[in-house]
Amino acid sequence: MIYFNSDYLEGAHPALMAKLNETNMVQTVGYGEDEYCAAARVKIQNACQAPEADVHFLVGGTQTNTTVIAAVLRPWQGVLCAVSGHINCHEAGAIESTGHKVITLPTTNGKITAPQVQEYVEWHRNDESTEHIVQPGMVYISYPTEGGTLYSKAELTELYDVCRRYGLPLFIDGARLGYGVMADGADLTLPEIAHLCDVFYIGGTKVGALFGEAVVIMNPALKKDFRFIMKQRGGRMAKGRLLGIQFDALFTDDLYFRISRHADEMAYQIRDIFVSAGYPLLFDSPTNQQYPIMPDEELAILGKNFGYEYWERTDPTHSGVRFCASWATTQENVDALRAAVQALKK
Amino acid sequence: MIYFNSDYLEGAHPALMAKLNETNMVQTVGYGEDEYCAAARVKIQNACQAPEADVHFLVGGTQTNTTVIAAVLRPWQGVLCAVSGHINCHEAGAIESTGHKVITLPTTNGKITAPQVQEYVEWHRNDESTEHIVQPGMVYISYPTEGGTLYSKAELTELYDVCRRYGLPLFIDGARLGYGVMADGADLTLPEIAHLCDVFYIGGTKVGALFGEAVVIMNPALKKDFRFIMKQRGGRMAKGRLLGIQFDALFTDDLYFRISRHADEMAYQIRDIFVSAGYPLLFDSPTNQQYPIMPDEELAILGKNFGYEYWERTDPTHSGVRFCASWATTQENVDALRAAVQALKK
Amino acid sequence: MIYFNSDYLEGAHPALMAKLNETNMVQTVGYGEDEYCAAARVKIQNACQAPEADVHFLVGGTQTNTTVIAAVLRPWQGVLCAVSGHINCHEAGAIESTGHKVITLPTTNGKITAPQVQEYVEWHRNDESTEHIVQPGMVYISYPTEGGTLYSKAELTELYDVCRRYGLPLFIDGARLGYGVMADGADLTLPEIAHLCDVFYIGGTKVGALFGEAVVIMNPALKKDFRFIMKQRGGRMAKGRLLGIQFDALFTDDLYFRISRHADEMAYQIRDIFVSAGYPLLFDSPTNQQYPIMPDEELAILGKNFGYEYWERTDPTHSGVRFCASWATTQENVDALRAAVQALKK
Amino acid sequence: MIYFNSDYLEGAHPALMAKLNETNMVQTVGYGEDEYCAAARVKIQNACQAPEADVHFLVGGTQTNTTVIAAVLRPWQGVLCAVSGHINCHEAGAIESTGHKVITLPTTNGKITAPQVQEYVEWHRNDESTEHIVQPGMVYISYPTEGGTLYSKAELTELYDVCRRYGLPLFIDGARLGYGVMADGADLTLPEIAHLCDVFYIGGTKVGALFGEAVVIMNPALKKDFRFIMKQRGGRMAKGRLLGIQFDALFTDDLYFRISRHADEMAYQIRDIFVSAGYPLLFDSPTNQQYPIMPDEELAILGKNFGYEYWERTDPTHSGVRFCASWATTQENVDALRAAVQALKK
Repeated sequence: MIYFNSDYLEGAHPALMAKLNETNMVQTVGYGEDEYCAAARVKIQNACQAPEADVHFLVGGTQTNTTVIAAVLRPWQGVLCAVSGHINCHEAGAIESTGHKVITLPTTNGKITAPQVQEYVEWHRNDESTEHIVQPGMVYISYPTEGGTLYSKAELTELYDVCRRYGLPLFIDGARLGYGVMADGADLTLPEIAHLCDVFYIGGTKVGALFGEAVVIMNPALKKDFRFIMKQRGGRMAKGRLLGIQFDALFTDDLYFRISRHADEMAYQIRDIFVSAGYPLLFDSPTNQQYPIMPDEELAILGKNFGYEYWERTDPTHSGVRFCASWATTQENVDALRAAVQALKK
Repeated sequence: MIYFNSDYLEGAHPALMAKLNETNMVQTVGYGEDEYCAAARVKIQNACQAPEADVHFLVGGTQTNTTVIAAVLRPWQGVLCAVSGHINCHEAGAIESTGHKVITLPTTNGKITAPQVQEYVEWHRNDESTEHIVQPGMVYISYPTEGGTLYSKAELTELYDVCRRYGLPLFIDGARLGYGVMADGADLTLPEIAHLCDVFYIGGTKVGALFGEAVVIMNPALKKDFRFIMKQRGGRMAKGRLLGIQFDALFTDDLYFRISRHADEMAYQIRDIFVSAGYPLLFDSPTNQQYPIMPDEELAILGKNFGYEYWERTDPTHSGVRFCASWATTQENVDALRAAVQALKK
Repeated sequence: MIYFNSDYLEGAHPALMAKLNETNMVQTVGYGEDEYCAAARVKIQNACQAPEADVHFLVGGTQTNTTVIAAVLRPWQGVLCAVSGHINCHEAGAIESTGHKVITLPTTNGKITAPQVQEYVEWHRNDESTEHIVQPGMVYISYPTEGGTLYSKAELTELYDVCRRYGLPLFIDGARLGYGVMADGADLTLPEIAHLCDVFYIGGTKVGALFGEAVVIMNPALKKDFRFIMKQRGGRMAKGRLLGIQFDALFTDDLYFRISRHADEMAYQIRDIFVSAGYPLLFDSPTNQQYPIMPDEELAILGKNFGYEYWERTDPTHSGVRFCASWATTQENVDALRAAVQALKK
Repeated sequence: MIYFNSDYLEGAHPALMAKLNETNMVQTVGYGEDEYCAAARVKIQNACQAPEADVHFLVGGTQTNTTVIAAVLRPWQGVLCAVSGHINCHEAGAIESTGHKVITLPTTNGKITAPQVQEYVEWHRNDESTEHIVQPGMVYISYPTEGGTLYSKAELTELYDVCRRYGLPLFIDGARLGYGVMADGADLTLPEIAHLCDVFYIGGTKVGALFGEAVVIMNPALKKDFRFIMKQRGGRMAKGRLLGIQFDALFTDDLYFRISRHADEMAYQIRDIFVSAGYPLLFDSPTNQQYPIMPDEELAILGKNFGYEYWERTDPTHSGVRFCASWATTQENVDALRAAVQALKK
């Protein structure tokens, strides 16, 4: 069985494991106050060209989204988000559990637009019953989106302009940030992304780490007391160094970007396998997640030897499914998938 | 200026004021443990043919919806609701503030159907990521709905059947219950409604009281400790007798039903005024709220002398608006409205 | 049976009932946007000598405390409070239900001191684990306290100085404010209280109204968006005018102060009744609540004809209990109590 | 510099690192549904002699306490806890952030007693204002306590009896469980602990793992839907196998118990070092945490070469501090500490 279900099927990139092994018996203080975390923070600040940014390490994506959003909003505010956004769909109500509504905007490609945000806020402000309606307090987007798509520099710039005009902090969920930055056609660098939002995070769990997400707070107004809420939400590891050690390794010699590019290239092969075989795609994704639409019968055959993630039913006999590549995807496994898909067509 | 904006424009029905005046200097214990509340509870149990029901009095609708829903759900559960439901639209995020997602189902007439609920729950249960998705934990409907429409007995029966099959308590928001029960064509009596749900409330604020909503808990499993959460949510009045006194009066000599019928009849005249003048309606409402769609220019003229509530833009030059009747609406004011609308057409 | 259990045994002062009756059929818009609320706001601003203050009306004390505290704090902050404070003891966990810890300071007389607050904050800031400990974010006191005692002008000034020095908003729970302001020996006027805190409320429920509390926000930084959270917490009455009408009456011709003074004077008679009979007092209260300590046997006899509130056991055969006076307490009832207590001693 | 500050100064026990390295490139599904987690669950069930128990893996202690307590309580309930309990002191208000009060009971040694719980619940039930007071809904204890002390079998049995009599689930925080079970004089085995509570957790972070806590749910009534709330609270790792791999190793060949015993033995040497030198102890701890009380001057000298954790000031010139041993503590470092302490006395 070969798995393409997700980008968190294996442990960590060997360079990270090596550093974890090498430092295992060193004594450090806890909760992220150690020298490894300090070093990793500097490397991330440098990579973002943001020496003033605050950098904090958390364990996973749901925890990170919840902590950031709860830290930004006031009790009567909600977060604007694409209806397909991870916080709306797949976090078991974590945002609502902190008291905040996820206010959804429609989308077909996982993205929301500047005019959508502007129109919503204007409608809210001008409604007679404005104080009876949850106040939009920030905007959440993911880059890449849950469908693997990307905002262009023009789109993100326009969106951030609207956010600033209305005083809405913009938060970018970068659980798969590397796969976006390194994608064919992507026109946003890491420093550009950093400077086009108020706070974002650099995903580690899905990009080579055992676990870990690095929150980068760009807007000084959002920095105060963040470590208090991290602790409150269970987000400060006793052995916080584990996060510092891993991010230090990821941001040494461009490892984060190199392994992201490898995954994207493997994903392009996977896309070609399905497209060449005549399968349409749910999303036009230039990143590591690919979503072919296949007949259920053929999926059943393929599923005997290959793992994928079921996404959604598209009609009574077809389904959209997800195949992911990652830093760990091998050419050998992709070749095996190619052979299997081609065999379906014979 | 004559107001038709809402059904809470005046104080209380004179019969209630009389009883409040009459009892004003009587000493009673607080927090709803007094004899007036006890008497009102019995009258409501009788009116519902539900001698075993628990009856509690709260001050307003948002407080009531929040308290009931927070009492029923577990932390990882959400409440299924029409996208137009009051808890989703006009309670400033009160439900989310208790940690729960409002899970919306599409609707055009304010109602949701048994198959919609069934399909959603089946989808949730069978999704690979079920534990990553908020668990539906109860169903909320309003009767009448926010558009003034009504569930038929067949519809409510089928919905409640599905709810019971899936273990989802059904909660009916009856902020305007009287206007529904007494509507032309309504085929549900108060006792029938009571026995086709797990918990509901009988609205007083919009049906003749100064304020007050009577929660009726039919399902024994939901009764325990409800007064604790009422207190926690600020829902137990020190002078709780004020609620008992008013509900006692409302449920004496069918006052609640008589004033509701009056409002419906006034509303039918209002509907006829607009329909006769050729205006379409947003909703086909048999209850006290009527929603004509009018050209903005004519609304501006009418608005000089008549108050209404803006509902929504229907096209660049037309809007849907709300005209309400209540226990206090006079024939004189309705006649004035008729003359004004007819004048628009000349 | 004559009740002295509390100060909310009757309805409203007749002047308020008169005004409610008189305005009953007037049409107004809802949710506190009416002209009665506007007029009452001005009268309260004038009474406080605080023309810039924001004034909002809520229904009850628990709702008011919860709404104010939730509006002020950030998620990782708690509220400093005497261990005997109402929010810690008798609100069924309402504050915690909004996510905030009530951080208690010891007290014997219901008051906390400036040095206590300073010491706590300094300890918190200097603890190695500061980020693992709830951050104190505001200070709550009650005036009068739950034991009927009062802060002197010197004490409140010193406390507010410390609060400002540490950036902690000071909130005064004035559920019984009138009884404090008019007490023998009280050296704080209403305007002085207003200017020695960031936000406070003027209690109506326990001082002559059917219900209602007037929140006065002095600190401009706390004003923004308060009506959103009022709505979210169920604190905006549809017929908000009921609050405006009552507070308008209370702040016309010094009614609020006159009825408060009456209650205090009745309470002094009650205190003398018990002290003359040789009973010690739990608290040295100059306000409308008096707390004699009595043998359980004598309480049982007295309880046959007089209602009081049980407070606490002081030893195996004695209990401290509460007798309250209010605007409605009559000389006749106090005389009856005197006779009954004197009879116990024969 | 040699650190004795805590038991989470190093990475993981080498046996765990070996297994993490060995399995690093194996593909598994995520979120704890993998075969390593399955195997670890069985080993823990066996170690607890509780084949029916549910076992779930979370990342850290605050997350675990919060998730368990939020899963057990209803909104109007609080958790009874020693005033020194970790959830009350050092979790930044995590419990309150889920809406629940931590109801504290006094203690001098970190433990609470069966009579204390009984008395509190009886007082709550019989208070006139019971519905105005947070309802006690469960009991939290730690084993060992925050002071390193242990409940005896008799004490825990009596406590659990009271809990069951009053319907209060008992939750044991076992962040340092191994150090308790293996302590001199401890008369409770792991299976006995498991069967004397409703839910507990076996700490990994402080007992040899990189991170990880194993929740063991003994009471069937508490099992339902626990994975939903784990996800909601950010407690399900994408690479959940990391937890399974580590707990599998810890529960192979009694590793968990062997390394715990090593730590306790090192701690006894540390205790003897201080006691022999004439320093009193804050707590009489038979486990891996030792708390000497020392003059501040001598602490300053010792602190130049040895790390410890500041605990509390005991008088103007003395402080109680914590020295911890762990699986990683070496004889060499303990000898160095002995020499340094003896040198203070010369």
